[in-house]
Amino acid sequence: MMPTESDLLDHIYRRSEGLGGGVVIGPGDDCALVRGGGHAGTLLTVDQLVEHRHFLPGTGVDLIARKTVGRSVSDIAAMGGTPAWGLATGLLPAGCDFGDTLFDAMARWADGWGCPLVGGDIAFHEGPLVLTVTVGGVPSGRVLKRGAAEPGDTVYVSGRLGGSLESGRHLAVEPRVELGRQLARDESVHACIDLSDGLGRDAGRVAAASGVGIELEAERFPCHDGCDWSNALADGEDYELLFTASRPMPASLAGVAITPVGCVTEDRGCRVLTPDDRVIDASDRGWDHGS
Amino acid sequence: MMPTESDLLDHIYRRSEGLGGGVVIGPGDDCALVRGGGHAGTLLTVDQLVEHRHFLPGTGVDLIARKTVGRSVSDIAAMGGTPAWGLATGLLPAGCDFGDTLFDAMARWADGWGCPLVGGDIAFHEGPLVLTVTVGGVPSGRVLKRGAAEPGDTVYVSGRLGGSLESGRHLAVEPRVELGRQLARDESVHACIDLSDGLGRDAGRVAAASGVGIELEAERFPCHDGCDWSNALADGEDYELLFTASRPMPASLAGVAITPVGCVTEDRGCRVLTPDDRVIDASDRGWDHGS
Repeated sequence: MMPTESDLLDHIYRRSEGLGGGVVIGPGDDCALVRGGGHAGTLLTVDQLVEHRHFLPGTGVDLIARKTVGRSVSDIAAMGGTPAWGLATGLLPAGCDFGDTLFDAMARWADGWGCPLVGGDIAFHEGPLVLTVTVGGVPSGRVLKRGAAEPGDTVYVSGRLGGSLESGRHLAVEPRVELGRQLARDESVHACIDLSDGLGRDAGRVAAASGVGIELEAERFPCHDGCDWSNALADGEDYELLFTASRPMPASLAGVAITPVGCVTEDRGCRVLTPDDRVIDASDRGWDHGS
Repeated sequence: MMPTESDLLDHIYRRSEGLGGGVVIGPGDDCALVRGGGHAGTLLTVDQLVEHRHFLPGTGVDLIARKTVGRSVSDIAAMGGTPAWGLATGLLPAGCDFGDTLFDAMARWADGWGCPLVGGDIAFHEGPLVLTVTVGGVPSGRVLKRGAAEPGDTVYVSGRLGGSLESGRHLAVEPRVELGRQLARDESVHACIDLSDGLGRDAGRVAAASGVGIELEAERFPCHDGCDWSNALADGEDYELLFTASRPMPASLAGVAITPVGCVTEDRGCRVLTPDDRVIDASDRGWDHGS
């Protein structure tokens, strides 16, 4: 069988254990954290956006720009950091005539989120449009990791979930930067991850990284209009935050609704209690985006 | 006319003038330099490597890995910095079965050059293999820029030039990190750039960025066996350093031969005195790699 993206990443995570030097957090979380020279360190993340795979030909240039920058900014938000700078690469199809417009739009979105594009690389080829955005961020004192959930925590999600692809919301990414920073300042908040691959798969990642279990209650899932719990569980690309906390959270934070959707348990695994009282395994539902 | 990569980059450089905040050096040099929190700052660079464009199908995995990491490390070397960390993305053709081998090899080269891969992103698609490597580096006190050449400086190059593509040397990149660091410590060294697009084009970039002229003497060019001055001028992908200095340099530094090849003048432009005493314009010779 051919390896999947997850297989390749698992291999990289295993190989990277114990990276020394200034590497505080290596591969396997939403961002890496490197440190050196006595300062607070830098959060680092990179994502690629590929035509046909992450957006369809004919998608508006501003939405392509927003999604490619927003996905990386969302990773910084998931660690509670503040975006500081960005680097972008563009591999443009031969004959592409919207390069200037696209890079200007990426620069505007990056500026708006506080991470001006300070460099990059451009090439043409005979193939699809491929963009990458690297973002560096400043930690807010405490860094939120996916492996920090504790039994007894409540599991929360921000905003509403589901139907991202069909509605086009997957393009209009709104990274939860201010929410992430507020969560990082609250010591009762333990684990955090951004929801890129669906509540089921991403909650499963938090459970696995933390060595705990998570039980989700489908009836509590905050769903977008026209979506039900199974969309929230499996559709992905919501770019909301999932986090666990040992104390009750307010109904909204940083202007975003916060909903309790489950709890952290001692038993490993990630399970969903469905509205018809079945218990299903959540951890392999959702998209395999590999991160 | 369709814009070239250089057109797109020129547009980005103009738009990015005066980026504020912690951005000390924005788009347009080998690396950006961002600063914050009172520390020395971080050198940042990203390059992409594209099948068919930068290497041919069937190229050995270890050479692909070496070239993709080495090109970014060479940018850090050109600024006189020390590589500190790396991020990699891989967009693999569907059915590609060497992902693990490739990423392990990239990690080995990155470790060897001091910039362990701390994160990244992997996806499959129906298209060519596309890799990007972002490298962050620590400046050596002083940062070498391409825009710092002064009239009266001598122009030097490291190593030997020409024939990189035909010989396969373009894959076996040997970034001049230690040389760059030594140059950064020498106040008589002014401008520096790595030779990715040919001596002619890259010397032209130094001249333009510095607001000066450069006159090159073709008979002095240190050429690889089987190459002549025109190969050195135009072939590209040598990944040697070109620098200017106000005092004579030794014949070798950091174990690499150093050859004077011309001088910096008040008159703008970049000219080459050929062995048959013609004067040609050098600035538009070489590959348009866009950086």
